Amino acid sequence: MINSKKAESDYPISNIIANRWSPVSFSAQAVEQEKINSLIEAARWAPSAFNEQPWQYIVGIKGDETHQKLVDTLAEGNDWAKDAPVLMCSVAKSFFDHKHKPNRHYMHDTGMATMNLVLQATELDLITHQMAGFDLEMIKKTFNLDEGFEPASMIAIGYAGDPKSDDMKTRDEAPRQRKNHSDLIWK
Amino acid sequence: MINSKKAESDYPISNIIANRWSPVSFSAQAVEQEKINSLIEAARWAPSAFNEQPWQYIVGIKGDETHQKLVDTLAEGNDWAKDAPVLMCSVAKSFFDHKHKPNRHYMHDTGMATMNLVLQATELDLITHQMAGFDLEMIKKTFNLDEGFEPASMIAIGYAGDPKSDDMKTRDEAPRQRKNHSDLIWK
Repeated sequence: MINSKKAESDYPISNIIANRWSPVSFSAQAVEQEKINSLIEAARWAPSAFNEQPWQYIVGIKGDETHQKLVDTLAEGNDWAKDAPVLMCSVAKSFFDHKHKPNRHYMHDTGMATMNLVLQATELDLITHQMAGFDLEMIKKTFNLDEGFEPASMIAIGYAGDPKSDDMKTRDEAPRQRKNHSDLIWK
Repeated sequence: MINSKKAESDYPISNIIANRWSPVSFSAQAVEQEKINSLIEAARWAPSAFNEQPWQYIVGIKGDETHQKLVDTLAEGNDWAKDAPVLMCSVAKSFFDHKHKPNRHYMHDTGMATMNLVLQATELDLITHQMAGFDLEMIKKTFNLDEGFEPASMIAIGYAGDPKSDDMKTRDEAPRQRKNHSDLIWK
């Protein structure tokens, strides 16, 4: 079992930022409800444009109906995620309540909330893995998302476990890759 | 000087998440280059769809040309930000390099990177305040953003200072407000 793959950073960064990574091998061990509460609480305190807080989370716990419905939307390549004891899908509201004006920042701010959530998970010794590969239309239909509400990211959450295949082992052992630090500065 | 306004959270959360807030009163004290390096490094290690890492930062240091150019784009209500010793503007790339396909997650993932950046700032005893109020078109023109590159968020960064007006004092002393925890769960 690979418990961590700390970022090989060029400059010092916070441990929870360096230790967050996206493995695919989850243990069957359930996640405590108080930890789930803390994950949502961390998302709650993210900043947002005009404090609109355009994020919500569909929360599925393995064994419940919501978890199965979320599993049903996963793309084939994300089959491993069915074993994660918690699946969440973030839902982003694309307009401001005030005057119903479009909120240009809705995805950006939902991303910030979810970053808080996954870092809080890291602090609680949980692993997380976000996915883009799921059926957006099925989410909207299954969970009755009104117009203007968009699924953003599917998040697998749980404890680290043993890889169930060679492919999963290879994925979890692959080195973490990032652009160069200097490439992040706009010139 | 108000040094912190820790989140009054309903469930336990990480200190750097609770201590991050968005004051308007900045000290004139410069930010050390090694701290700026760590902020960008923290952004670097955020996750992204297909590891595309669609974020970059325009970095202005008070006294340099870039800082002044960023100040010139600020909306009137964000006049206080001209005193922040560091101004950054995140730039989000809206397409995948691979086949030039649109990247639905570009703003979301840039938000995640920026959340890492502002949390890293909190860890380094810096304050940050993100703004939506700035002239997008002026940013694009001034910094030669190619088509498909979008300014996301303006970020004021520095050390906490004394409020320069009653209005700034009032803003920094106002209680932090968030939706209820239960309202973040999609039902």
